[in-house]
Amino acid sequence: MKNKPGKQSRREFLYNVGALGSTAAVYRAMLSMGLLVPGDAQAAVNKQRWRAASQQFLNEALPTIAVLGAGISGLTVAYELKKAGYPLFVIEARDRPGGRNHTIRSGSLVQENDSQQSCSFDNEDELYFNAGPARISQHHSNLLSYCSELGVPLQAFVNDNRGAYIHSSAAFGGQPVRAREVITALRGNIAELLAKAINASALDSELSFDERASVLEVLRDYGDLTVNNQFIGSTRSGITPGSGGLSPAQAITPLNPDDFLYNSDVPFVPSFVETYNQAATMMQPVGGMDRIPNAFASTLQDEIYYNAEVTAIRRSANGVLLEGRVGEQEGTIEVDYAIVTIPPSVLRNIPNDFSAAAINAIQQVQYAGPTKIAFQSTRFWEREDQIYGGISWTDPNILQLWYPSGGFGQEQGIIVGSYLFGGSNADYFASLSTNERIELALAGGEKIHPQYRSNLSRGISVAWSKVPYTLGGWSVSSPSSVLQQPDGPFLFAGDHLTYLPGWQEGAVISGLNALANLLDVTGA
Amino acid sequence: MKNKPGKQSRREFLYNVGALGSTAAVYRAMLSMGLLVPGDAQAAVNKQRWRAASQQFLNEALPTIAVLGAGISGLTVAYELKKAGYPLFVIEARDRPGGRNHTIRSGSLVQENDSQQSCSFDNEDELYFNAGPARISQHHSNLLSYCSELGVPLQAFVNDNRGAYIHSSAAFGGQPVRAREVITALRGNIAELLAKAINASALDSELSFDERASVLEVLRDYGDLTVNNQFIGSTRSGITPGSGGLSPAQAITPLNPDDFLYNSDVPFVPSFVETYNQAATMMQPVGGMDRIPNAFASTLQDEIYYNAEVTAIRRSANGVLLEGRVGEQEGTIEVDYAIVTIPPSVLRNIPNDFSAAAINAIQQVQYAGPTKIAFQSTRFWEREDQIYGGISWTDPNILQLWYPSGGFGQEQGIIVGSYLFGGSNADYFASLSTNERIELALAGGEKIHPQYRSNLSRGISVAWSKVPYTLGGWSVSSPSSVLQQPDGPFLFAGDHLTYLPGWQEGAVISGLNALANLLDVTGA
Repeated sequence: MKNKPGKQSRREFLYNVGALGSTAAVYRAMLSMGLLVPGDAQAAVNKQRWRAASQQFLNEALPTIAVLGAGISGLTVAYELKKAGYPLFVIEARDRPGGRNHTIRSGSLVQENDSQQSCSFDNEDELYFNAGPARISQHHSNLLSYCSELGVPLQAFVNDNRGAYIHSSAAFGGQPVRAREVITALRGNIAELLAKAINASALDSELSFDERASVLEVLRDYGDLTVNNQFIGSTRSGITPGSGGLSPAQAITPLNPDDFLYNSDVPFVPSFVETYNQAATMMQPVGGMDRIPNAFASTLQDEIYYNAEVTAIRRSANGVLLEGRVGEQEGTIEVDYAIVTIPPSVLRNIPNDFSAAAINAIQQVQYAGPTKIAFQSTRFWEREDQIYGGISWTDPNILQLWYPSGGFGQEQGIIVGSYLFGGSNADYFASLSTNERIELALAGGEKIHPQYRSNLSRGISVAWSKVPYTLGGWSVSSPSSVLQQPDGPFLFAGDHLTYLPGWQEGAVISGLNALANLLDVTGA
Repeated sequence: MKNKPGKQSRREFLYNVGALGSTAAVYRAMLSMGLLVPGDAQAAVNKQRWRAASQQFLNEALPTIAVLGAGISGLTVAYELKKAGYPLFVIEARDRPGGRNHTIRSGSLVQENDSQQSCSFDNEDELYFNAGPARISQHHSNLLSYCSELGVPLQAFVNDNRGAYIHSSAAFGGQPVRAREVITALRGNIAELLAKAINASALDSELSFDERASVLEVLRDYGDLTVNNQFIGSTRSGITPGSGGLSPAQAITPLNPDDFLYNSDVPFVPSFVETYNQAATMMQPVGGMDRIPNAFASTLQDEIYYNAEVTAIRRSANGVLLEGRVGEQEGTIEVDYAIVTIPPSVLRNIPNDFSAAAINAIQQVQYAGPTKIAFQSTRFWEREDQIYGGISWTDPNILQLWYPSGGFGQEQGIIVGSYLFGGSNADYFASLSTNERIELALAGGEKIHPQYRSNLSRGISVAWSKVPYTLGGWSVSSPSSVLQQPDGPFLFAGDHLTYLPGWQEGAVISGLNALANLLDVTGA
């Protein structure tokens, strides 16, 4: 490992807390400017504080910083440090930036502890597979701000497609139905039941006479009930073939609650896209999620050292002594501060001089082990099933199929054949050989799409618990307040320090927190 | 008007009904091939029949066809006729194809009976305004099939954005709230009320003991209720500023039903995107809806005559005699058949020899007079309001604001400042001067966005009832079965002949119906 930036002595930041104001004052000022919106305001304050402070560094001797890891949090930190003029370098164990943000396309390699796969997708713009994060919420404003600043084009990501399928072996005799059928039947039956209860005077103590009339009117609209408050089906569920063009639209037969309401997970599936982080509008970079780390990294070409592995993180007299290796070559380097973004799943196996509290916190982080698999295919789901983007849900052994949100109407596309968030089904998937995973996904997917096997090929999978330098998907533990704070010369970052684990927004927020910590420990 | 294609004699089609089978047989065959999906299957059958028949025309002398109007239905017909080898021409009164499919961008002209506007948007790819149709449903398979065949790139259109605003002067003290707040409060309060009724034994005759337990579990998930079946708020509504990053997400205070449930239209607004034609996935062509007519028209450069107005449609001994003019020059032309796509609002004022039944049907068609207005602006709604695409709803005098679904993160964007579907508010809007419309939209929009006036400029509006050669938006009458059938040598097409008025899919379906009629009347 080469010590590229010259070592520099400590210095005093000029940052004047009084001039810029306290965090609370900045917060109030931003609110008054209309700049603060739900999301993580603290991160926006941190960024504002950082940028105000760093504008005053111009003629200062700044401390040397090592950023350990070129994932989204490390890239955020390094990008800001470089803009502020810090001598810095980024140590990245892989040969690419992004960490778990890994877009797989023609020629990409997927390394696991016991296997290696090479991606044989055709080489086309829309033939990519976001094996890690794959969506961005519109209120992930800290991440989106960098996308805008770095010129990363975004497009809508279809998370909620009413034409996608919901399939369960425990419902509808195992036949897939459209999401719109489930949602409409739920609304219709709930509205009808409540209308019945109101008309039976069961809620007279809750609702006045006038309110009851208003609620009934709302329910008729909500559930698409008849004037007699009955749910007898709705074109919201879909229409019969041949109707709705030259002849009037005829609603298909509504789902019978007996077929799914009392005995399956089906009613719970549509709630997924009601949650704050999953509800529309969701987005993705055009052409692959790695457009983001690539854009960051393009500004850090002289600072990032790829294929460089940290083997020990030590305290030294004036800061941090890092041990590491590039290939067979070992070396050490001394810096003033290290910003440590290596995931705890990996970090706990690297010898270090962290405080006992930090070591304990790192030890405690529990990880989910998500898995994904994708295939190249003709887009039969568009032409034959009228599904453009979105997610079909099925039994828990493969759980989800994702249709591409880009390249609509093109001949070929990439379909995600399974996405498991963790747990026993993901562990089982991870335990399979790469060929066995393909067979599992095909056998599951063809329950929804009979065209599956004759169209899908070139399956490629990732089990994040087995990917070196990651060893997991995201933290399922509460964020450690210990690791949110500086540990002497060590500052931590990573989505695991936030309440947005597994989201890039969490990584950015943690990076901005580390920068605020840096201002704190350097007295800025 | 010049008679370009030589007049040709009638001929016998080789099309063998017995070989290809009846419509019903084709329908069954397509079903068995998995080709038929909800949408308009009849149109798919018509297309299949047309293409099978037209493959046998190669050495035939085909009748001469005039297509009146180069909107989507006329373009569909002309495209298919040309591929089949028919001598044909298209007579279009405007200087562009598309009809109501009009995308306005830098330099575009908007003509109304008493005004003309020129668009002063900056000349950038994403700065366009779809003044006519602006979305495509994923099950509009007949239109989508042409998009695919013609290579028109599509992207997701955000119709349902949970972060967009719902505003009503009759609710929440006139303050805008986010759609996610309304939807979550509706679900929560409906679920809580129904749970109360169930626990009060009000529905014991409807639900068994076991079913009641299942329904309560579903309701807790559906409404995000507490374990005690109470709705006390949910992060689905949104989270408080500063929470959800380094600290746990805190739900904002839920909307109080008293503020909107009993006295406003607010509860009805979210149902819009539950309807079959408006539910996700919705799409749009990248760069403007006119990519579709432009793609059709590029295949018909020798066939379309622009700025050519039909002044009379007469029967002749062997077919149709058309009178028309281009500028000051008048002329006539004789053809075997005319496919008439001119909207009834205009057609009824053109002297013609249609049957009495057809004349009556054309007279009966009632039209909606929709209006739209758009402005160029910095994308403050993205950066400051975290709104990426979608629609905000407000009082009925301007009703909707549309945020662009493309070009996320760019500096400038086009915001639709009002879209009225018709009725008295649209009539009022249409009656205003173009400057008065701008003021109306700004005054309405700033109730939602305080940043409105300081950002929006270059407003441009369309009142479809006042646009020559259109004189309305879409039919609000039931489609005429008379006009779905041939009237001697006259075959009619247009979305008004379908149950998809105002949708391009309806125009395509009607065009395919006209082609089927042509096969019928020519004995194919």
